[in-house]
Amino acid sequence: MNPKIDDTFVELPLLAVREEEGHLNPDFILAVETAIDAEDSDGLRELAGKLHEADTGDLIETLGEAQRAVFVRLLGNEFDYTALTETDEAVRLKLLEALPNEDIAEGLGELDSDDVVYILEDMDEADQAEILDGFALADRAQLQRSLDYPEDSAGRRMQGEFIAVAQFWTVGQTIDYMREARDLPESFYEIYVVDPGFRLLGAVALDKILCAKRHEKITEIMTETRRAVLATEDKEEVARRFERYNLISSAVVDDADRLVGILTVDDIVDVIQEEAEEDLRALAGVGDEEISDSVITIARSRLTWLVVNLGTAVLASAVIAMFEDTIEAMVALAVLMPIVASMGGNAGTQTMTVAVRGIATQELGTRNMLRVLRREVLVGFLNGTILALLIGVTAWMWFQNPGLGIVIGGAIIINMLFAGLSGLLIPIGLDRINVDPAIASSVFVTTVTDVIGFFAFLGIAALWFGLPI
Amino acid sequence: MNPKIDDTFVELPLLAVREEEGHLNPDFILAVETAIDAEDSDGLRELAGKLHEADTGDLIETLGEAQRAVFVRLLGNEFDYTALTETDEAVRLKLLEALPNEDIAEGLGELDSDDVVYILEDMDEADQAEILDGFALADRAQLQRSLDYPEDSAGRRMQGEFIAVAQFWTVGQTIDYMREARDLPESFYEIYVVDPGFRLLGAVALDKILCAKRHEKITEIMTETRRAVLATEDKEEVARRFERYNLISSAVVDDADRLVGILTVDDIVDVIQEEAEEDLRALAGVGDEEISDSVITIARSRLTWLVVNLGTAVLASAVIAMFEDTIEAMVALAVLMPIVASMGGNAGTQTMTVAVRGIATQELGTRNMLRVLRREVLVGFLNGTILALLIGVTAWMWFQNPGLGIVIGGAIIINMLFAGLSGLLIPIGLDRINVDPAIASSVFVTTVTDVIGFFAFLGIAALWFGLPI
Repeated sequence: MNPKIDDTFVELPLLAVREEEGHLNPDFILAVETAIDAEDSDGLRELAGKLHEADTGDLIETLGEAQRAVFVRLLGNEFDYTALTETDEAVRLKLLEALPNEDIAEGLGELDSDDVVYILEDMDEADQAEILDGFALADRAQLQRSLDYPEDSAGRRMQGEFIAVAQFWTVGQTIDYMREARDLPESFYEIYVVDPGFRLLGAVALDKILCAKRHEKITEIMTETRRAVLATEDKEEVARRFERYNLISSAVVDDADRLVGILTVDDIVDVIQEEAEEDLRALAGVGDEEISDSVITIARSRLTWLVVNLGTAVLASAVIAMFEDTIEAMVALAVLMPIVASMGGNAGTQTMTVAVRGIATQELGTRNMLRVLRREVLVGFLNGTILALLIGVTAWMWFQNPGLGIVIGGAIIINMLFAGLSGLLIPIGLDRINVDPAIASSVFVTTVTDVIGFFAFLGIAALWFGLPI
Repeated sequence: MNPKIDDTFVELPLLAVREEEGHLNPDFILAVETAIDAEDSDGLRELAGKLHEADTGDLIETLGEAQRAVFVRLLGNEFDYTALTETDEAVRLKLLEALPNEDIAEGLGELDSDDVVYILEDMDEADQAEILDGFALADRAQLQRSLDYPEDSAGRRMQGEFIAVAQFWTVGQTIDYMREARDLPESFYEIYVVDPGFRLLGAVALDKILCAKRHEKITEIMTETRRAVLATEDKEEVARRFERYNLISSAVVDDADRLVGILTVDDIVDVIQEEAEEDLRALAGVGDEEISDSVITIARSRLTWLVVNLGTAVLASAVIAMFEDTIEAMVALAVLMPIVASMGGNAGTQTMTVAVRGIATQELGTRNMLRVLRREVLVGFLNGTILALLIGVTAWMWFQNPGLGIVIGGAIIINMLFAGLSGLLIPIGLDRINVDPAIASSVFVTTVTDVIGFFAFLGIAALWFGLPI
């Protein structure tokens, strides 16, 4: 996952890797598979040896399970292990199991430390230890430090390769140092200035170095970073800061303010996308399943949600059961009642979706809550009235009963108001008690709109027509 | 929206701008409001003159509508118009209306061209023209060129400020040029190499320049970019490429392969987040409404979705109406039927959400469709069976009727299978006929699970118990 300038299309093999729309080219896949099956190492290297890691990652996912390890073996030292950071977790772990640990250790040796950590973190402890043993002591310490930080922390995602210079250096010294240095990060956008205790003093963007005179002191062109990312900080917090302030990279410091690594925006892009997608998945009741997960994994992860919703559905049924006699007396009510619940559910989901994202992006907070609440009530009332008219007239015509139109119209307006209220207040309330609103909101909102929907409709009908309850 | 190294916390005023969780500090807001109401220009400049544009943007949104223009006026030339790229569209447009066009033209003169375009594009034509007249001819041409590209294209979002050097230059010449040049972009990460016709030859990352010797030819360290971003390309396509290949910036070329601008990752981050969020909103039936939109705007944008879903709900009611006599004969069916529809709806939404995101990220395609289909059927059958048992036993106990348990269990299994099938096939089918699956899928999926749910449950019940239809 090294950030790159657009070198995507350099030295492509003759066969195009991707089609216009971005999918891998089927002819290319076929050629690769043929080379694998023929154990044609040279042919395979020519086809896939120079691919970008992202293309190699996608290619690995497309191959059959048995072909993947053969693919890596045939490519030999032309296989770039960074590609493993671009595959699904399930695919990566299976492939790693199929490869000898010493090959993995050798392959990972070429990578930046953040990529090594990304690949190692999900492996079992024994394999992890064996692979780590293949690293030089200093590198191993760096990797272990990252692995010791919590899974969702900045420290776990940071890269250990960076350039730090002393505060008394000049621009010229810095440039000369970079020209001579080996073991530089693969790409970098800024360098860091530290004091003798390796405490972070500031950062200098490369364009500032290039535009400065050689004799200038590095501290004169440096930007003081009064608050760098803390290694223990949650990666989503960090992502929000990158996004808010349009950062490209940031230093990571430990509790003693010592520079321990850097984060670059390409890693953060993944976090940002994951976060928006997490909300989407959570609202729909799917976990972080991947397209390559097994039937059992997926069935199990989805079942929880379904069982919780079963509770909601049974609760709604219990409300209907209260009105069994009413329905028996006028069966048209059974025909129409799902409309009321469904309209409320849809309106509640609309409000809730906006509220959940507003909370996640911090656009919805205490300062504008009342204004938004007022707005939701008005929107609910406005759309409720329009829908009530539409549905009311439909029901009247359908059952030739104007009273039925009035009853369903009234129930719709009531349910739309409750939908707006619960769609807003439930996510806010959950957030207040530190429950992720994306995960838990929709069960509660649906419960409200179902229960209120059935209760209002059947209740008003019983009163209006004087039916038994 | 200029990408920045982490200079976020430099020269902060004494009062913290944000609280721990990232919201604006209420005390800070109060101080700003007091300064505005007292027309205290000096005090306001001290408080808010040096803020990061993102903070200023959030601050503007928090202020009362009348205070916003006063805020800008009091800050005078310390107001950074870039902040307007960080506010909601509704807030920005109202504020721009309240400011004199000549002030706007002067303020925008300081900005990079992509930010100017972002601010101008939604204004009405007359104001746009008047403001553009305040720019120098060359700048105006650049802005007009961007504005002429379609709204969602790379050309509309590109930045006109970049550094291009001739192919025969050395590294030393390039560095000297940058040291002397004025009017450089605010930040940059690579420079571009062009031929005499300004056709793009390649790009050189700044770290490569810094690590090279002065006498080296620039073409020796440049990366050939065989396919840069086309100005007419859709921004979401571009975002996918940035994300896939971890790009930081990319050249933008016109149809004749001439370099016309650059895109940087910070603009792309917004596109990536918007895209994931668009899917979330589309699935829930909310448009791109913003937290500051008016009641009427929001009510109207949500109503369409509700009316479409009303059609679905009426269709489901029509299915129930077919079984009026059945329900009259056994009113417990009316109590239980929403459970079947609701379980199907939830399972369908789960599959659909995964499918819609899989299509958007290109992880789901022709090559793995059959495998995913087989998996969805198995998951539906597995979870359907478990839920059927749970619900079947519940129904049996509740109504003391084992037959009712069998009937509802059978209906659940059938509906869960259809939920899996429709949740996958409907998004894929919509994508094939070029309809956005995120927008249209959920209406169809809900229709299927409602209709099948009610039909299967009431139909099987009628057959099993020999009830009238």
